[in-house]
Amino acid sequence: MTVDIPLKQEYDNSYTITIDALKTLHFDTKVAVITNPKVAGLHLKKLLECLQAMEVIIITVPDGEQYKNQETLSSIHERLFDHKFDRKSLLIAFGGGVIGDMTGFAAATFQRGIDFIQIPTTLLSQVDASVGGKTGINNRYGKNLVGAFHQPKAVYIDPSMLKTLPKREFAAGVAEIIKMAVTFDGEFFEYLQRVDLRNDEEALKEAIRRAVSIKAGVVAQDEKEKGLRAAFNYGHTFGHVIENETGYSTYLHGEAVAIGMEMANLLAIELDLMSEEEADSVRTLLEKYGHNLEYAIEDIDAFYEAFFLDKKSANNTITFIVPEHIGGVQIRNDIEESNVKKVLQRFAR
Amino acid sequence: MTVDIPLKQEYDNSYTITIDALKTLHFDTKVAVITNPKVAGLHLKKLLECLQAMEVIIITVPDGEQYKNQETLSSIHERLFDHKFDRKSLLIAFGGGVIGDMTGFAAATFQRGIDFIQIPTTLLSQVDASVGGKTGINNRYGKNLVGAFHQPKAVYIDPSMLKTLPKREFAAGVAEIIKMAVTFDGEFFEYLQRVDLRNDEEALKEAIRRAVSIKAGVVAQDEKEKGLRAAFNYGHTFGHVIENETGYSTYLHGEAVAIGMEMANLLAIELDLMSEEEADSVRTLLEKYGHNLEYAIEDIDAFYEAFFLDKKSANNTITFIVPEHIGGVQIRNDIEESNVKKVLQRFAR
Repeated sequence: MTVDIPLKQEYDNSYTITIDALKTLHFDTKVAVITNPKVAGLHLKKLLECLQAMEVIIITVPDGEQYKNQETLSSIHERLFDHKFDRKSLLIAFGGGVIGDMTGFAAATFQRGIDFIQIPTTLLSQVDASVGGKTGINNRYGKNLVGAFHQPKAVYIDPSMLKTLPKREFAAGVAEIIKMAVTFDGEFFEYLQRVDLRNDEEALKEAIRRAVSIKAGVVAQDEKEKGLRAAFNYGHTFGHVIENETGYSTYLHGEAVAIGMEMANLLAIELDLMSEEEADSVRTLLEKYGHNLEYAIEDIDAFYEAFFLDKKSANNTITFIVPEHIGGVQIRNDIEESNVKKVLQRFAR
Repeated sequence: MTVDIPLKQEYDNSYTITIDALKTLHFDTKVAVITNPKVAGLHLKKLLECLQAMEVIIITVPDGEQYKNQETLSSIHERLFDHKFDRKSLLIAFGGGVIGDMTGFAAATFQRGIDFIQIPTTLLSQVDASVGGKTGINNRYGKNLVGAFHQPKAVYIDPSMLKTLPKREFAAGVAEIIKMAVTFDGEFFEYLQRVDLRNDEEALKEAIRRAVSIKAGVVAQDEKEKGLRAAFNYGHTFGHVIENETGYSTYLHGEAVAIGMEMANLLAIELDLMSEEEADSVRTLLEKYGHNLEYAIEDIDAFYEAFFLDKKSANNTITFIVPEHIGGVQIRNDIEESNVKKVLQRFAR
């Protein structure tokens, strides 16, 4: 005896990303702004000038990946309960990726899910975390291991907030933009070669728009990261090992990914998927923004073994994302150890 | 400058509830069975005989609502990480509502969501928690305040497991079945009048099937509980106050709901929505299973005020679910205090 339970998502998940100077935001509900002291000091005044709501509370959490944990999450929930937030209340993530991930997860799990919007203040979170619906926290087993998929209701990107962003963080965000272009859009790559995102706000807006559009197109086809979306890990397979080897303190995420992109490009050359000239052009574009793509590997075998510790390496195969010329990408788990080690050898100390 | 992010749920949420003796369950993944010592002692042997998987671990958590909290949830996650569970692994909720809610939430938040199936072992969880996708834990602010909607992949209901269920718990489950009939299906109510679910396994299976079918039909129209689904709170508006007044120790949830149904019926009579005879027939059916519908209210005003503490009372209105004859229901937030207090007066000590 069986009963079939037909379920449809009765609500529409779609949302809009607005890339422009922040304008008035009006909500007929209670609103909590989740931010950190640094962002609050630089930009909270401006946000509060734009924000109209039934009640606004500010929840400031400590800055840094090490605070993206259960304790901070619980403290956010407690503030919401203390202020009698209900299922109609709204959260606003106001900060970088850490704030976005944690606010999204707080919203996903508060009374079985409430709305949130994102106002990302770093270039990386603007082009990366604003699309995809990934939320979560870290624990002692690793990063983002507890979390949920929860889509924001809207994203507001105000590029003028990037003026206060440290140069290295800006460059780390540009690396993610270049990543999108190399893997999915050769024409966009050529556009990036022609402009300078540091001194041209219109070009910066256009680059953000194109990067999030690429990501949105891929995510729409693969919301739960089962296939094509893996392509965004271009540079990350190598980059994660670099971050891990250097204790997450030497490189910003985007800087490690930039080196990882260089490694992936060299692997693509080994596999005859990319020419030396194409790899050179990616390197030149990354270096234009100050990326240093040199890295000294102490122990080739240890570096290789570290791939298998990544949570994405299911079933003892390693998935490598290799560009196919510029504007194309292959997701491969059949790459010979010898090919990978030949690439790593070029970075041997 | 805006970008629209079109999202569709790329996977199908639908699932099947099987009501029958448990048969072989085969999974090509790691499986964790989440259960409590009582259920494990009674039924785990049988489950393990049916279960084939790559690896099976048993996670036993303490029995009771007071353990449905963040600590227990974290301990479940830690066991999963220790055993290197990944995004393809599966959880099985094996127990009553507490186990189901907590296992579902553990699955919803482990690596951004993994599959789980439910094998509910109490009548209440079979007819109630097996449909709807509600998962969550309690905290010091209240019940189920942290949680998510996460649908199981399948539900297996084996009515033979109810043979070991204490009589009061069985009756509490029957109250929820009667609730479904009164609010949505007059013909089902007449069926329940004719049979005895305690001594007739075929009738019991049929009643479970019809109760979950009713719930499934409503949930499909209102997955996130914004409208019609509120009708399932018939008996609950009053019942929650009764549970709260008696410290959650005197009555089982279904027992308090049964008294709440009696109160809602008297309110329906006040509003000319139900006849005395119809209310009598519901009372008779509840009493057939041993429900005692008497309750002594010490303080009418305090009882009334307590409605406003319920998290479902948004914007200072109280939503009452009142039957319209038998087989119909109204969701009302316009009911006069005087009408409600007239009903409460009949229970005054």
